[in-house]
Amino acid sequence: MRTRRLIFFVFLVFLVLLVACDRRKTTSRPSQAGPPAELIVQARAAFGLGELPARPVPGPDTPLGQRIRLGHRLFFEPRLSASATISCNSCHNLATAGVDNRTTSLGHNFQAGARNAPTVLHAAVQTAQFWDGRAADLEQQAKGPVLNPKEMAMPHPVLVVARLKSMPEYRRFFQDSFPGDPDPVSFDNVAQAIADFERQLVTYSAFDRYLQGEEGALSDQAKQGLRLFLNKGCAGCHNGPTVGGARFAKMGVVRPYENTTDEGRYAITHNAADRFVFKAALLRNVERTYPYFHDGSVWTLAEAVQTMDEHQLGANLSRPDVEAVVAFLRSLTGEVPAEWRTMPELPASAPDTPRPLP
Amino acid sequence: MRTRRLIFFVFLVFLVLLVACDRRKTTSRPSQAGPPAELIVQARAAFGLGELPARPVPGPDTPLGQRIRLGHRLFFEPRLSASATISCNSCHNLATAGVDNRTTSLGHNFQAGARNAPTVLHAAVQTAQFWDGRAADLEQQAKGPVLNPKEMAMPHPVLVVARLKSMPEYRRFFQDSFPGDPDPVSFDNVAQAIADFERQLVTYSAFDRYLQGEEGALSDQAKQGLRLFLNKGCAGCHNGPTVGGARFAKMGVVRPYENTTDEGRYAITHNAADRFVFKAALLRNVERTYPYFHDGSVWTLAEAVQTMDEHQLGANLSRPDVEAVVAFLRSLTGEVPAEWRTMPELPASAPDTPRPLP
Repeated sequence: MRTRRLIFFVFLVFLVLLVACDRRKTTSRPSQAGPPAELIVQARAAFGLGELPARPVPGPDTPLGQRIRLGHRLFFEPRLSASATISCNSCHNLATAGVDNRTTSLGHNFQAGARNAPTVLHAAVQTAQFWDGRAADLEQQAKGPVLNPKEMAMPHPVLVVARLKSMPEYRRFFQDSFPGDPDPVSFDNVAQAIADFERQLVTYSAFDRYLQGEEGALSDQAKQGLRLFLNKGCAGCHNGPTVGGARFAKMGVVRPYENTTDEGRYAITHNAADRFVFKAALLRNVERTYPYFHDGSVWTLAEAVQTMDEHQLGANLSRPDVEAVVAFLRSLTGEVPAEWRTMPELPASAPDTPRPLP
Repeated sequence: MRTRRLIFFVFLVFLVLLVACDRRKTTSRPSQAGPPAELIVQARAAFGLGELPARPVPGPDTPLGQRIRLGHRLFFEPRLSASATISCNSCHNLATAGVDNRTTSLGHNFQAGARNAPTVLHAAVQTAQFWDGRAADLEQQAKGPVLNPKEMAMPHPVLVVARLKSMPEYRRFFQDSFPGDPDPVSFDNVAQAIADFERQLVTYSAFDRYLQGEEGALSDQAKQGLRLFLNKGCAGCHNGPTVGGARFAKMGVVRPYENTTDEGRYAITHNAADRFVFKAALLRNVERTYPYFHDGSVWTLAEAVQTMDEHQLGANLSRPDVEAVVAFLRSLTGEVPAEWRTMPELPASAPDTPRPLP
């Protein structure tokens, strides 16, 4: 009799849990009663339908899944630098929204870079890489800093490959990531794996919930800021799913920008129209990616909005307008998935692994 | 009728799962039939009963739990350095067993340190901190690198406190970690929180399973190495739960060590008996903490064992003996808990946060 009562009780607990789970699923869906507000419709036209809360990561049994996990290791791999102390994460720190929060980064021998380090979060979606767009995609971008004498300062791709190839664990990771490749540990494949990993670096913000129809995801002030952002011209350059990063623009359309030392794309194209032209920065997580602009000269969001307003739009925002735009920009902050903030346990060097350079 | 059958089926699945869970619990216990082997008994006398696979982490509702989580953030906090680029993790990288795998570390302005950076894993259990034991505990140790002009190069503790105090999130973390403290954001409390975090940095290895009675956890070669380690004198200095770190010893007992530039503890005590005396390194994870010795001069385990044998014990190990000791030392490798390898999302600087120093 007691056993039967116990079984019945356990079953009851089980049923209650089932019902509770189901309720949670139902209540966590965004409310989608009726057509979305006009502002949401307007925002969707400029920015799309928003990110998903979690991207599906391909399983480790697929080559892409292996490449992503290999790229994750390489992203944190200090042996990709001459001194064996600088990794991608040194300047694109995933603990601080994929940047180092410095005017310009410090590389090999503490040399300062020429421009502010942009975030890796959502970087894959951009139309081109670097402030001047000189790399077409992440695969091309990833090679730059490794060989740049002011950054990771590897003297030659051969040394990159020699370091990695010396470790049996890396040889296996590359074989699993590039099946059928007769020479899987190559500099091209290093860049490919890092790029595949970086495409996973996507955050989910209050603004995504808003785009998906959750009206309450933005405060009234942030909605007012979004309205200004759409109607005053900001979204002319900062548009698309990453709220920027989709096109180039002259820094100083209405009023010349004070810092004239950096001529932007002109240095590459030598086209007069490209003087002071830079990629319009992607604004996702902009609250955490200070200091701002290619020269990292501005430290607060309010000042950055004002600077843009004055130089690009003709100073048509009031003080409360600026504050509203800042409130909207803060709604673009998301969390870097914990899976990618978890540093891998890196393979130990082998006796013949080329040592750090002096 | 169909509903009843469905309920019965669901209940059956539930029971099967319950039974399966219980079986897993039972089978994961190490086999402890009969008294342990003599070698295990001898090893327990030298090294204790081994680490647990997972240390209980105090809940975030306790002050200690809060301090550990605050210390975890501070461990990854580059704003504890003048340039805002160097954190504890820069030289004690949790992706590489709590070291940087360099002869000596690179700090502010790429200045090289004077001695090899020891691991933070299991560091708390040591009798003293630093190679020369000049800090009594982790609380005292943690302050050193922050203010060292060659390392993190903060000019004064006041700047450390000013940076942290400027951020509302840090103010709250310190309040929760040090309830009742009228001035919770202090340099002492920074060190306290980092030390509380570092006490969590414990790894669980095959050797622990062996000490706990799992005979098969070590290969025959590793057991032979353990026997040599115990009987040839290695365990005279490298003993206790961390297999070292418990006492000081002269580098060059039998034969003087070649590198005489560093006089060890003598520089602190000015006692002639302390000339060339250093802390005997803790050997947990030693496979991954190369290069070896206070001067980081030796890169492979085999060479390190040979060097110790020649200088400390009188060259009584054969080539196969050295290989056996290396096999034993590899059994001390464990995994850094993923929870602590997960970088926190660090608070954003406030407008009045003191900026990186040039």
